Amino acid sequence: LKLVVPSIQSSLSVFNVSVEVLATIAFAASGLVAAARKKLDVFGVCMVSGVAAFGGGTLRDILLDKRPFFWVEHSAWVWALLLLCPLAMVLMPKRHIVFTEKAIEIPDAFGLGLFCSLGTLNASLAGMPNIVAVLMGIVTAVFGGVLRDLLCNSLPKTFSDHQPYAVLAFIGGWLLLGLRAHGLPDWLSISIAALITTSLRLLSIRQGWSLPGWRDQK
Amino acid sequence: LKLVVPSIQSSLSVFNVSVEVLATIAFAASGLVAAARKKLDVFGVCMVSGVAAFGGGTLRDILLDKRPFFWVEHSAWVWALLLLCPLAMVLMPKRHIVFTEKAIEIPDAFGLGLFCSLGTLNASLAGMPNIVAVLMGIVTAVFGGVLRDLLCNSLPKTFSDHQPYAVLAFIGGWLLLGLRAHGLPDWLSISIAALITTSLRLLSIRQGWSLPGWRDQK
Amino acid sequence: LKLVVPSIQSSLSVFNVSVEVLATIAFAASGLVAAARKKLDVFGVCMVSGVAAFGGGTLRDILLDKRPFFWVEHSAWVWALLLLCPLAMVLMPKRHIVFTEKAIEIPDAFGLGLFCSLGTLNASLAGMPNIVAVLMGIVTAVFGGVLRDLLCNSLPKTFSDHQPYAVLAFIGGWLLLGLRAHGLPDWLSISIAALITTSLRLLSIRQGWSLPGWRDQK
Repeated sequence: LKLVVPSIQSSLSVFNVSVEVLATIAFAASGLVAAARKKLDVFGVCMVSGVAAFGGGTLRDILLDKRPFFWVEHSAWVWALLLLCPLAMVLMPKRHIVFTEKAIEIPDAFGLGLFCSLGTLNASLAGMPNIVAVLMGIVTAVFGGVLRDLLCNSLPKTFSDHQPYAVLAFIGGWLLLGLRAHGLPDWLSISIAALITTSLRLLSIRQGWSLPGWRDQK
Repeated sequence: LKLVVPSIQSSLSVFNVSVEVLATIAFAASGLVAAARKKLDVFGVCMVSGVAAFGGGTLRDILLDKRPFFWVEHSAWVWALLLLCPLAMVLMPKRHIVFTEKAIEIPDAFGLGLFCSLGTLNASLAGMPNIVAVLMGIVTAVFGGVLRDLLCNSLPKTFSDHQPYAVLAFIGGWLLLGLRAHGLPDWLSISIAALITTSLRLLSIRQGWSLPGWRDQK
Repeated sequence: LKLVVPSIQSSLSVFNVSVEVLATIAFAASGLVAAARKKLDVFGVCMVSGVAAFGGGTLRDILLDKRPFFWVEHSAWVWALLLLCPLAMVLMPKRHIVFTEKAIEIPDAFGLGLFCSLGTLNASLAGMPNIVAVLMGIVTAVFGGVLRDLLCNSLPKTFSDHQPYAVLAFIGGWLLLGLRAHGLPDWLSISIAALITTSLRLLSIRQGWSLPGWRDQK
């Protein structure tokens, strides 16, 4: 068994890194779409994409007073962003944006699941109370998008589109804490919590679930 | 005397805590009103209310590099917010919003007085120069509202409504520093500075005072 | 030589401080203009000007986890701002704003050059990888303006005006790192990098250079 589990863990780790890369690209692409809508120039596109991809984790680390940031430790990501964004501006004509938005829904759902689990775990390991740890998971997964919309001078989509998104990150965060409390190892807790959150997100898109608004909102 | 003062102090402390709770609820309610105007969903409502209530103190603590935040140390407040906001969405129909806005003016004025005094004291104890300490008092009392408006994609009300609000926090901060410099104990300095600031705010609402704008603004 | 270089350095230092003061005033004035456009009151004007002047460096220091901020260490600047902004509101009628915007282009270009070099140097000395140091130089020089526009509920000008501005700060940052890597002393590297960045900015204004946008943006 001792021989098998590390190998599962290691192939899971490869899987996790692939998911993380894919999800980060999806988050950056959401920034690209938002920046294209507002007709930003090349600097605006790079900044908004970068903030969409790394803003959530950065804000969490500022709140937790943790350094270095992900993009400082792995600064190759900054290079990747600075090369891919202008490339996308050249290769992706604006009429493709609606298509792009549709295409990133699936990796974005993986990002939601993975980053809310990772964010909650990070905050919990930093000694935060459970409810704060879950909140930090939401910040990690959702606030890149909030900051993206603020930089584009738009009302944050996750505050106003009445889709279950942050609410699912909330569920995912508690799931992770519950699984860990039951003694599951971190890699397994993250995988299960992330997978369930992602599945719920994909299901909610397919089913068109929507959150309740104000009672007499006509 | 030694027997009397602690008892005054202790009943003042109970009074202070009550004021703080009431003021925090007023700040959160201002977020609720702003979120209702923008028809945010339940996640947006919780976030905007939370930022309105705790954003000012959190920003001050980030600037002062101080941890833990109030809502991390007292994480029951996060729970309270997550329960009360959806409840308010159910119980408070949108036509009540104008009424709510009027109703929170008085506790909000208490919040202004209390939080500018507490914020200035905190920053002063952290070794900030006087003018910076007063600025931190303003950040504590006013920037929850500024961040609330930014998250709602509105021009910050306190920047543009020409009412004396932050200006009164400025006066209150200096008052606190002056009283402390004259040797008054902290609890008394806070109480006096907060009370005067709150009174000035209530007076300014009643009298309709307004700040000067640009000279030829027609 | 030993007698001459310090004297060059010392007169350069006087020159540098003058440039820094002038550039900071130009940044603050850009806040003043933005605040006037949105008809902000006296508190809004002071805050937006202050954020335009010091927001970039403050954000950089938050990201680098460095304290004290410039305006905490040199708190006389806060006083200067609180006195000059209301004065400007009285003396500068709104019809002069277009003129002011034109008049601050030159000191603003000096600010761009100086602050991108200083910011990059600061971050590099704090141990950041090169690409992150250059990014911090951009944050220092450009994000005061971004935060100014966010507080005014506008789309950030540097993201959307298609002028080379942050792109020049990017060039200036790499120039500084290159010069330092070739063994030039810091004061000389800063002076050369700042001067070239500023010259490029002035040239780009005069020539009306513009950044490419999205391919089919009609």
